[in-house]
Amino acid sequence: MLTPGEALDAAGEVAAALATDVVEREAAGRPPLREVQLLREAGLLPLLVPAEHGGTGAGWDTAYSVVRTVTAVDPSIGQLLGYHYLHAWRIRLNRRADAVDRLDAAGAAGAWFWGGAGNPRDAGLELEPVDGGFLLRGVKHFATGAEVADRITASGTRTDTGEKLSIAVDAHQDGVRHGCDWDALGQRLSASGSITFADAFVAEADVLGPNEQAAPGAPAFATLHVLAFQAMLSQLYVGIAEGALAAGAQYTRTKSRAWATSGVAEAVQDPLVRQRYGELDARLRAAAALTDRACAELAAAAGRGWELTAEERADVAVQLAAAKVVTTGAVLDVTSTVFELTGARATKTGTGLDRYWRDARTLTLHDPVAHNAVEVGDRLLTGAAPVPSAYS
Amino acid sequence: MLTPGEALDAAGEVAAALATDVVEREAAGRPPLREVQLLREAGLLPLLVPAEHGGTGAGWDTAYSVVRTVTAVDPSIGQLLGYHYLHAWRIRLNRRADAVDRLDAAGAAGAWFWGGAGNPRDAGLELEPVDGGFLLRGVKHFATGAEVADRITASGTRTDTGEKLSIAVDAHQDGVRHGCDWDALGQRLSASGSITFADAFVAEADVLGPNEQAAPGAPAFATLHVLAFQAMLSQLYVGIAEGALAAGAQYTRTKSRAWATSGVAEAVQDPLVRQRYGELDARLRAAAALTDRACAELAAAAGRGWELTAEERADVAVQLAAAKVVTTGAVLDVTSTVFELTGARATKTGTGLDRYWRDARTLTLHDPVAHNAVEVGDRLLTGAAPVPSAYS
Amino acid sequence: MLTPGEALDAAGEVAAALATDVVEREAAGRPPLREVQLLREAGLLPLLVPAEHGGTGAGWDTAYSVVRTVTAVDPSIGQLLGYHYLHAWRIRLNRRADAVDRLDAAGAAGAWFWGGAGNPRDAGLELEPVDGGFLLRGVKHFATGAEVADRITASGTRTDTGEKLSIAVDAHQDGVRHGCDWDALGQRLSASGSITFADAFVAEADVLGPNEQAAPGAPAFATLHVLAFQAMLSQLYVGIAEGALAAGAQYTRTKSRAWATSGVAEAVQDPLVRQRYGELDARLRAAAALTDRACAELAAAAGRGWELTAEERADVAVQLAAAKVVTTGAVLDVTSTVFELTGARATKTGTGLDRYWRDARTLTLHDPVAHNAVEVGDRLLTGAAPVPSAYS
Amino acid sequence: MLTPGEALDAAGEVAAALATDVVEREAAGRPPLREVQLLREAGLLPLLVPAEHGGTGAGWDTAYSVVRTVTAVDPSIGQLLGYHYLHAWRIRLNRRADAVDRLDAAGAAGAWFWGGAGNPRDAGLELEPVDGGFLLRGVKHFATGAEVADRITASGTRTDTGEKLSIAVDAHQDGVRHGCDWDALGQRLSASGSITFADAFVAEADVLGPNEQAAPGAPAFATLHVLAFQAMLSQLYVGIAEGALAAGAQYTRTKSRAWATSGVAEAVQDPLVRQRYGELDARLRAAAALTDRACAELAAAAGRGWELTAEERADVAVQLAAAKVVTTGAVLDVTSTVFELTGARATKTGTGLDRYWRDARTLTLHDPVAHNAVEVGDRLLTGAAPVPSAYS
Repeated sequence: MLTPGEALDAAGEVAAALATDVVEREAAGRPPLREVQLLREAGLLPLLVPAEHGGTGAGWDTAYSVVRTVTAVDPSIGQLLGYHYLHAWRIRLNRRADAVDRLDAAGAAGAWFWGGAGNPRDAGLELEPVDGGFLLRGVKHFATGAEVADRITASGTRTDTGEKLSIAVDAHQDGVRHGCDWDALGQRLSASGSITFADAFVAEADVLGPNEQAAPGAPAFATLHVLAFQAMLSQLYVGIAEGALAAGAQYTRTKSRAWATSGVAEAVQDPLVRQRYGELDARLRAAAALTDRACAELAAAAGRGWELTAEERADVAVQLAAAKVVTTGAVLDVTSTVFELTGARATKTGTGLDRYWRDARTLTLHDPVAHNAVEVGDRLLTGAAPVPSAYS
Repeated sequence: MLTPGEALDAAGEVAAALATDVVEREAAGRPPLREVQLLREAGLLPLLVPAEHGGTGAGWDTAYSVVRTVTAVDPSIGQLLGYHYLHAWRIRLNRRADAVDRLDAAGAAGAWFWGGAGNPRDAGLELEPVDGGFLLRGVKHFATGAEVADRITASGTRTDTGEKLSIAVDAHQDGVRHGCDWDALGQRLSASGSITFADAFVAEADVLGPNEQAAPGAPAFATLHVLAFQAMLSQLYVGIAEGALAAGAQYTRTKSRAWATSGVAEAVQDPLVRQRYGELDARLRAAAALTDRACAELAAAAGRGWELTAEERADVAVQLAAAKVVTTGAVLDVTSTVFELTGARATKTGTGLDRYWRDARTLTLHDPVAHNAVEVGDRLLTGAAPVPSAYS
Repeated sequence: MLTPGEALDAAGEVAAALATDVVEREAAGRPPLREVQLLREAGLLPLLVPAEHGGTGAGWDTAYSVVRTVTAVDPSIGQLLGYHYLHAWRIRLNRRADAVDRLDAAGAAGAWFWGGAGNPRDAGLELEPVDGGFLLRGVKHFATGAEVADRITASGTRTDTGEKLSIAVDAHQDGVRHGCDWDALGQRLSASGSITFADAFVAEADVLGPNEQAAPGAPAFATLHVLAFQAMLSQLYVGIAEGALAAGAQYTRTKSRAWATSGVAEAVQDPLVRQRYGELDARLRAAAALTDRACAELAAAAGRGWELTAEERADVAVQLAAAKVVTTGAVLDVTSTVFELTGARATKTGTGLDRYWRDARTLTLHDPVAHNAVEVGDRLLTGAAPVPSAYS
Repeated sequence: MLTPGEALDAAGEVAAALATDVVEREAAGRPPLREVQLLREAGLLPLLVPAEHGGTGAGWDTAYSVVRTVTAVDPSIGQLLGYHYLHAWRIRLNRRADAVDRLDAAGAAGAWFWGGAGNPRDAGLELEPVDGGFLLRGVKHFATGAEVADRITASGTRTDTGEKLSIAVDAHQDGVRHGCDWDALGQRLSASGSITFADAFVAEADVLGPNEQAAPGAPAFATLHVLAFQAMLSQLYVGIAEGALAAGAQYTRTKSRAWATSGVAEAVQDPLVRQRYGELDARLRAAAALTDRACAELAAAAGRGWELTAEERADVAVQLAAAKVVTTGAVLDVTSTVFELTGARATKTGTGLDRYWRDARTLTLHDPVAHNAVEVGDRLLTGAAPVPSAYS
């Protein structure tokens, strides 16, 4: 098992490997099977699993760093890895510690890749009680990573009692079918298509407890995965922006020509180019600093466990909403503006600089940033807490 | 021959026809032969040819309106048409009126489509004197429209005397070869690849006169095509933005769902959506108003013919540079922001909303807008005129 | 009486005179009596009065030009003059043509300065019928210009019948009292304090007709003054921005020092300074172009008289709302950013560059620009017309 | 002596006291003698003096927190206090540890207020050797705090040897004369006028060592005060923005009226108001997060002492330059935009909301932020370090 420090090194090596053919892979748009295998072989999958369960036992700060390193090169794979960490971790927000521990250990031992099937805008899944467990039925869209996953987090409603349960689904069974219908502007390798559960079997041991998240007045801790997703999104935006800025600077340094009337010999000497890169980098540094601060506060909140109060959760939620407002603006600015600093030839297919904008534009639509801003404004104006939901 | 009013109607019909399969055509990326034929059959090609030479005799205001109508639906074809107008018109900036008149008449009669081969960042073309004319040699990149053109404007240097000549090249000959190597992020149907002249024949009658544009102290009128290109670029940016804004609004109106916490039933009732659309539209209206004002000033300058002074040209050049600064900002903002107002599903391939951003991002890199801003600033600060060049 | 051309010259002379001590006058903040007298003596007051009634008979385009020239130097006095034109003109939107003609003629003969008392957020005024007319009672805030006016436009409600009437009030009577309580961040010389009517007499001849503006379903023409105010605000914002930009450029040219690391000898050679001035100027040119276009459409709408339809009015209202969005943004950007281009010493009291920002910040709060944007968005999204009100 | 925790409380009490009459004090513009006395009596002056020398021994994080608390209410006094900390601390960047220790102890014992006289754009000061020390001669502008200081940091050149020396000047002597000529748009209570040294005596014991800062190749540690000033400026900008945002929100909550067409009963329910406040707050949180991160890196660099390398210094310098780019943008946006969210009546004199913009606009011109951006861009593009100077 890797140490946290080794994980950072491994992330760098994975990123270097992904970089060699990312433009071609993105254009081809095949299911990211080899990429997930690369992550697995690098030992990065059990990063957040506690050491006593056989994992690296790293903290979220290490996980974010790993994710950003991969994202800067290949945003789709960065999202897959980031979401994997979220799913592998979020099982802890349930009451059945024994189930969680067992899954943790099995996941570390098997180097499982986790996906999820929880799009809140779809109808809920059904759980029909059968011998030794349940049969799971229903469809979910935007099931990032499920197509290439070993285990899938989900929740369903018992057809007999109406009780909502959190579950982990074994993805290697016939009843789990993938639409392979993700065909979008960006994040093309993120395996974010639909998933259908056609009487998929969920063993009793894979029921994590009641799904308390949906209920009004749910314990703050049980709903913390929502904030963890918002945090991850901001980290992904920062990672994409860092990748685009580095790629742009590399292009300007090595390929761009100075403009005739600029009075300088090389593009990197043009004050207008230098200033604009500096403005982009400054904006990005600020977005990263706020994101890291918000994520540290989230990690602290998670550390409070079931003691976490609604007001403590609200503070973190607002900080994360603020981060998302800022990272969204930064990544869109950076990924579009780098073209102005590289020049017309950088639009040539094969350069691949447009990937960053397409990925950012797609991923930043996860949920509307305007409403994140409203939450921040409410907190300032009236002290109101964001109402816990699937997005806040 | 169409009247100007009929041309506006015809543009609307062409746009409607192009709209039916623009997403598929753009994805396929084939040479725009059918599209140019559509423009030809609609009677739009001889729009600017004076009525006495068999054309519609419309003014630039009509031409811009036609171009924007087409561009709003299919930016590549809009560019092809706009550049065609530029090339068909710019021959008048030469001294040999007889050659110009004859080409005008032949172009109107034959419904010629004009392309150009003038990228200033390439080496110049050579003209070797032969019986009855010249043999033309050399390569030019970014030769928008040349691949589907009947005639091509260019200039070359006599190998014997070193004199620079403006010429019109018959594109239907073996010595004119197309690289078909345009493969970019956007404007994919604009046939903007390279062209090679391999001893292409240029008849003496197709020599338009000395190319005075390149010389320091060139008459202002002779260099007016440069400003006409800048004007057309701004019109194209406005057209792209108008198309994107209309497509976005249509999507929001018919497909977007209201956000859960917005407190309204339909997306078009959300104050945040309404305000943001309003801001985009306001910004675009301002960009269009300045562009139209600048273009009217350009038309007035063109009307001064060889009397046009350097200071008069400078006023127009600065106004156009200002327009380009503003239209560039507007089109990039509109084409990226509409996604926030349509939502995540609008990123699905097939929606085609990303075309607008890709086209805008590609076309706005024609020449660096930062240096347009510098020209405007210089005029304000010191009264300095932009130095006439290939871009100003 | 001046011709329109002479009025433009006179505006330039007035501006030059105002410029000599504007910083001191603004700091002193005395009632602008001498300034109004200067406008009167320059012959600028009867500019819009038809020639057959003894005025200059100029169009709104001339009036806007005059107002912008004065505003660029002294925004308060520009507002006073612009509002005077609005009040002198808006009497025509009433039914009693004889009363309007008589006031026009008297106003031209006497070189009247007009003020207004119509703040819609205050309670309405009362009109008690008496012999030969009415006694007017009530208080209005933000009565720009009333304090220095000869005649005041207003409307009141008859205490007997409840009928609403448009009126012109003779300001030279004891029953007209001025609060002299305007004490704001900007527009300090605009005489925008409160006015109290304490049984002020309004002669029957000064009743212009029923006030149809307030009623739902009012004729579009009767409510056109609202749009005329919106148009004037945008013109004033443009004028302030033009003044600030010119003052900033003058300072940079004559007093700013080049920054040590800029590598140039003079501030006007610094590419960063040149670009930023160019961006500001470009933004302002676009705002001015849209404002002029919207104002031309308003003038055309006014020319339609009582035939004007609600849809025609809506088109103009939306165009003007768009202009206000853009001019507001431009004037705030310009008036704040010029400081970055002039440097720390330009903040010295006495330089007076801050007047522009203070004036802009104050005047742009007339009504919230966010809701202007909403109106533009509504038109785009659903075709909805702005509901006629005191602000749209 | 206060503990660090007590200092934070004391800062809150000082802020509350300053808040009671800040608008009136700012308008009056008297020398801030009472305000400095308030800081002294609160025990805040020896905050950074090591405990072993009789001070609080707090770290920079505490000092920044104290400064921001005061600044949010009274930016001038916040600057005075922040600059005092800089001057009291920067003596440590010199070689004569004994002199520093002695001044530390005396400063703590006497609750000295420190000012500075170091404007790099003025000519240098002269030091004429006399018995027991030197006579100091020369003039410095922008000597913030000197007018109300007990001790003044400065540097001068020996008239005999040409050696540059760092010194601490006793301000309570006839040879120290204050121009009392600070009269600017903002920071009106910051006592930032000129200072004249007319044969002021500097005792040998108050010579801190050679002034190594000015020399090329100076040790990185010796030039760290420059970065400390840049850090303090960003903290002050954040403090001003925090104050303006809180004041704006307070006004909106308690005094603003909902706009008629907003469809809500109170201004705080208007989605457009809530969103805009949220955007401002998010932007400010990001600026604060980057500033705090950069300041922590600066504190770490200071902890390295004379071991600090040029590359380590460069990393901090670039981070701080990035922070300044971001904080400058944030504070100008916040202080201007709050007016849009409070409404027209907030421009009334007496409300005092304009102080924040005036203070921000003045203080952000300390050195041009455009060149901060260039430094960040250079680091990204070529790895170049900012050349140590008086501003970087």
